[in-house]
Amino acid sequence: MALDLKPLINPDSVAIIGASPNEAGHAGRCLANLERTGYPGRIYPVNPKYDSIGGHTCYASARDLPEQVDAAYLLVPARAVESALEDCLERGIRTVTICSAGYAELGEEGARRQQRLVERARERGVRLLGPNCIGVLNPVDTYVGCPTFNITYSYTPGSIALLSQSGGMAAALFNRAQGRSIGIRAMVSLGNEADIRLGELLDAFVADPQTQVIAVYVEQLRDAERFAAAAERARAAGKPVVLLKVGGSEAGRRTVLGHTGAMAGEQAVFSGMMHHLGVLEVATVDELLNAAYALSRLPLPAGPRLGALSPSGGECGYIADRASAHGLDMPLPTRQTLDELREKLKLALPGNPLDTTGQVIGDGELLSEVMRIFTADPNLDMVNLGIPTWGPYDSEALLPRIIEAVKNCDKPAVISAWTARDLTERAEELLRESGVCWFASSDDAMAALANLHRYAELARIPSAAPPAPVALPRPDTDELNEHAAKRLLAEGGVPVVAETLVVDADTALQAARRIGGPLVVKLVASGVTHKSELGLVRLLDTVEEAEAALADLARVAAKENLAVEGYLVAERLSGTEIILGAVRDDTFGPVLMVGAGGILAEHFADRVFLPCPAAPEQVRAAIERLAVHPVLAGARGRHHDVDALVDAAVALSRVFAGSPWMTEVDLNPVIVGLRGQGAAAVDAVIGLAPRD
Amino acid sequence: MALDLKPLINPDSVAIIGASPNEAGHAGRCLANLERTGYPGRIYPVNPKYDSIGGHTCYASARDLPEQVDAAYLLVPARAVESALEDCLERGIRTVTICSAGYAELGEEGARRQQRLVERARERGVRLLGPNCIGVLNPVDTYVGCPTFNITYSYTPGSIALLSQSGGMAAALFNRAQGRSIGIRAMVSLGNEADIRLGELLDAFVADPQTQVIAVYVEQLRDAERFAAAAERARAAGKPVVLLKVGGSEAGRRTVLGHTGAMAGEQAVFSGMMHHLGVLEVATVDELLNAAYALSRLPLPAGPRLGALSPSGGECGYIADRASAHGLDMPLPTRQTLDELREKLKLALPGNPLDTTGQVIGDGELLSEVMRIFTADPNLDMVNLGIPTWGPYDSEALLPRIIEAVKNCDKPAVISAWTARDLTERAEELLRESGVCWFASSDDAMAALANLHRYAELARIPSAAPPAPVALPRPDTDELNEHAAKRLLAEGGVPVVAETLVVDADTALQAARRIGGPLVVKLVASGVTHKSELGLVRLLDTVEEAEAALADLARVAAKENLAVEGYLVAERLSGTEIILGAVRDDTFGPVLMVGAGGILAEHFADRVFLPCPAAPEQVRAAIERLAVHPVLAGARGRHHDVDALVDAAVALSRVFAGSPWMTEVDLNPVIVGLRGQGAAAVDAVIGLAPRD
Repeated sequence: MALDLKPLINPDSVAIIGASPNEAGHAGRCLANLERTGYPGRIYPVNPKYDSIGGHTCYASARDLPEQVDAAYLLVPARAVESALEDCLERGIRTVTICSAGYAELGEEGARRQQRLVERARERGVRLLGPNCIGVLNPVDTYVGCPTFNITYSYTPGSIALLSQSGGMAAALFNRAQGRSIGIRAMVSLGNEADIRLGELLDAFVADPQTQVIAVYVEQLRDAERFAAAAERARAAGKPVVLLKVGGSEAGRRTVLGHTGAMAGEQAVFSGMMHHLGVLEVATVDELLNAAYALSRLPLPAGPRLGALSPSGGECGYIADRASAHGLDMPLPTRQTLDELREKLKLALPGNPLDTTGQVIGDGELLSEVMRIFTADPNLDMVNLGIPTWGPYDSEALLPRIIEAVKNCDKPAVISAWTARDLTERAEELLRESGVCWFASSDDAMAALANLHRYAELARIPSAAPPAPVALPRPDTDELNEHAAKRLLAEGGVPVVAETLVVDADTALQAARRIGGPLVVKLVASGVTHKSELGLVRLLDTVEEAEAALADLARVAAKENLAVEGYLVAERLSGTEIILGAVRDDTFGPVLMVGAGGILAEHFADRVFLPCPAAPEQVRAAIERLAVHPVLAGARGRHHDVDALVDAAVALSRVFAGSPWMTEVDLNPVIVGLRGQGAAAVDAVIGLAPRD
Repeated sequence: MALDLKPLINPDSVAIIGASPNEAGHAGRCLANLERTGYPGRIYPVNPKYDSIGGHTCYASARDLPEQVDAAYLLVPARAVESALEDCLERGIRTVTICSAGYAELGEEGARRQQRLVERARERGVRLLGPNCIGVLNPVDTYVGCPTFNITYSYTPGSIALLSQSGGMAAALFNRAQGRSIGIRAMVSLGNEADIRLGELLDAFVADPQTQVIAVYVEQLRDAERFAAAAERARAAGKPVVLLKVGGSEAGRRTVLGHTGAMAGEQAVFSGMMHHLGVLEVATVDELLNAAYALSRLPLPAGPRLGALSPSGGECGYIADRASAHGLDMPLPTRQTLDELREKLKLALPGNPLDTTGQVIGDGELLSEVMRIFTADPNLDMVNLGIPTWGPYDSEALLPRIIEAVKNCDKPAVISAWTARDLTERAEELLRESGVCWFASSDDAMAALANLHRYAELARIPSAAPPAPVALPRPDTDELNEHAAKRLLAEGGVPVVAETLVVDADTALQAARRIGGPLVVKLVASGVTHKSELGLVRLLDTVEEAEAALADLARVAAKENLAVEGYLVAERLSGTEIILGAVRDDTFGPVLMVGAGGILAEHFADRVFLPCPAAPEQVRAAIERLAVHPVLAGARGRHHDVDALVDAAVALSRVFAGSPWMTEVDLNPVIVGLRGQGAAAVDAVIGLAPRD
């Protein structure tokens, strides 16, 4: 059953359990905030110490409440939460927000107490938010159920839902957005997610008619499957999800671990999955807010082609550099547009960015004409109109015209303004009132437009039905050597190099002579997975080198005291090295990895991730995002067999999804030959799950 | 002779040529700005149309001025500038700022008129600022000689000099800084730099006792040698120079070209030279201001180890990720510090970032103790103290303690505050008054601390005397083939592969048999520099392949109708591919390039630049900045002969500096072998300057 948002973010009545007349404390603050912001519903303070608080009758226990209220806020110390919750359950309250800390974030004992709360609530069909959260802020319906001091005091309602596990960052995000007059539908702080979790809440906001965009601040995904389903529904509904994930750095992971008591998945896997789900991932708080803001105000651009104008040539150069840094294009307008601009502006070289020169500052009519011509150019997918300063003069003389131009533009158009406290007060006022999309610097504008474009690209990725998993039977061994791993994968359709496993050096030499040409000879020894590091892999240019190499391998084996199982002899393939892998992620389950091979590429961590099993279209789109893709696609005139690589990756993803006994697979490298030459794994490691 | 700053930025008297009582126009604005801001000197309006303006006697011409004034502002239309300048020269005015546009930025004819102005001024020993500029703002001495409307109206003096070629961006930078209460020594808008140029002005501000940091916004360096000398002096004086260069992107270059009428150098060369000069290069306006601000307020950190604390675990995770993204480390504090924090905070897991939890919000004493213990930890080089919100409660209750902790800290320490309009007003007021270094978000704080660390690293690079150039005589040909190029470079000490040039295929085959092993055979043809693209380079694994390869080369030569000069036969070296090159940069002259070779590395543009000739210490430090450096330095246990690479690069830089007839040199690749195996260029191209 879907989560009912109403009692959570817009209750008709609310009980404050642990209410207090002391507004310097959190408990007192909750009531004060509701009063101050004009909450239109019924407020019931609950505290046995008082008869009334702030003119409201105060009740000794939730059991004594005169009606079955929609929502309760629990603001009592952790030791008193359990019995207070019982009282709420007894009175039939539908949604309980537990702000109190002292649960799973402290460790196992706290987690057990937290679990007891959930079990009691579930028995009664009651939903819990928190514990360890700051609750809900809803500027649209004037419900500030938030027991914190440091929230802004003037609200701009809007269509962006803000969901955050962290309470502190929820407040920072909300305040920062409101300080920029970015309109918010509601902010929900999820805390420890004992009951209501991010995925379920996301789903509810996707269904909320007043929500257009959802901005998420997440430390750890506890209901990844639900989240994925909600993200799919958001995409189908055309409601963008923008997400900031923390814990990607080592110190960050330490922090997230420390204060949520659970493991965060690898950042690169997380990012790959978000891309797959059509979720726009961003890196900073302001990027999150500005991207959500742009998505809530603007249509999606048809492409990455930005047009920008400013009366300052200096700002034009700056915007061009920032646009380029954010991956946007700035093509020249059409010849017709250039001709018209040249005539209007009496300039030798109108371009993009368009330096209108200072002449438009004294001539608003000219400015309007120039903006009309420029913004209509068919070579441009989106537009930024800027001036490097927005003092009172420009604000009064020019800004209304620029606002007008943005309003009349049928493509995404924004105004960039370098805000500067008192100086730009009038400009900010006019911009707020106008309702157009504007940013406090051309940097913010470029970042937001780039994210708007990135989201448009994400939204265009076709969804594809995943192929069926392929189940391979678990071999009856405790360890798979390289050769056995390759043979097994080959049965599942994964292409591997043709090779011969022989038991002794003499037979290996015969095999080498039979194969001829450039060769690879490997010594296979029990328990050794990283052969290269022990010098057990020899690349031979000619068969003449084989005898000496085999002798030397035998010497190493003796020296290292290895249990020799045999020798692998194979043709040495030529092509580009790619790494294929598969792991079981704590958060997302079976995940496919495709990455560039070779030492330098590994240094650059050139990798993409997809869920297993993965459809060919998705694998192909993911490979196109690799930095190594131009090499595969034919840089220097060498077109590689990308089709074969896609097939190999899909095959691996199907096998891994269907064979839960594999903990991981590492094909490093897969050699991708030129077009028509195929792709084949030349090494393979399969991790085996412990037997039951 | 050094530029005298006094009449430029702090004149005792100023004449406004073209003054007007109309404050809605630029000419009127200049006088109004001086009056409004309380300029303490003497103001002389000049305009034949008026007897007096704003209570000041107005003069018909500069010739009529009652004293020899320090500075004049020319605000007349371009057509009247020349005669107005003559009047100023006649009256002995020492410094003339020409705001009027209509000169070199319009093209050649304008450049000629501009040159005439300079020549006239130089004859009289008068200095010119501009044309096409907005002049000077000096909050320290209350001189706002700036004829613009849109400048902020309240000033925070400080020790940061802002120098910008662009007038629009000069105003934006100044306003943005002042809006953040970042104190400014002076802002100078250079415009077209007809006379006073950036390098000379930088030198003057390095010598200015009230300037501590110089922030530069530059489109094009017109006096690179002077700039380099000034940057060296700035480094010696311990006055950091922070610089933002625009025109790096294609559209940006188009813009800068369009509006300055001159060529901008390649961005990567520029960046390499700035690094070499100890100039801190940044990418955005806010980064420029925040880095300059941090450098003006804080000591330099001993290393990259950041400590951060916040009462929000969520913010701790965020700060850790942002610090990591900016290249800062966040090590754990010492065991002793952790023990003390554990005892104070009753936490199981104090760490770094330190999540103090909400308990410090109600207990200021505890917060102070925790900050004292944490900031003193010897594992930390710098500290960030933050709270995700700074509402009135936190501002009054906690901020004074945090300010105190920063003041008592003997390492660089900052406060991060997520500013949010009205909500954080009180916090910003307290922070401004306190004089501590603070930022409007933890992103800005991390970026600024990372730049502080980057500058500390730059300041630690030892300066080294460059070696002497090596002059090679120009060969008496119009074209140098690969073999001749290598022999010539070898004479200059550049290591090249041993190879044999033979005239026909038979002799080539004999040479191949003599050398044996893996080989390279190349066909040398007149006028062909890119042999690989024509298929004229063959890598052979064995000598057996040589005959067929030579036959095939002959076939290609016949098909492409090449003028065959012979065949090059050489041993095929093994090692890592590096590219060495040298070019004559429009701005900086002879420049050495060292970069990673191979298709993927070229894709990542892994390159560094140095001036020629370059000292070995500098080359080594530059190579350490390459992404490929870990590979050279021994990743996978393979230590390459970096010494030999350094020697090769130094030799090339000496030869290129001493042989002006070479327009460029391209050694692609140089093969760097394992330690002791040396490095050698296996291909070489030398560009020849046209003969006189």
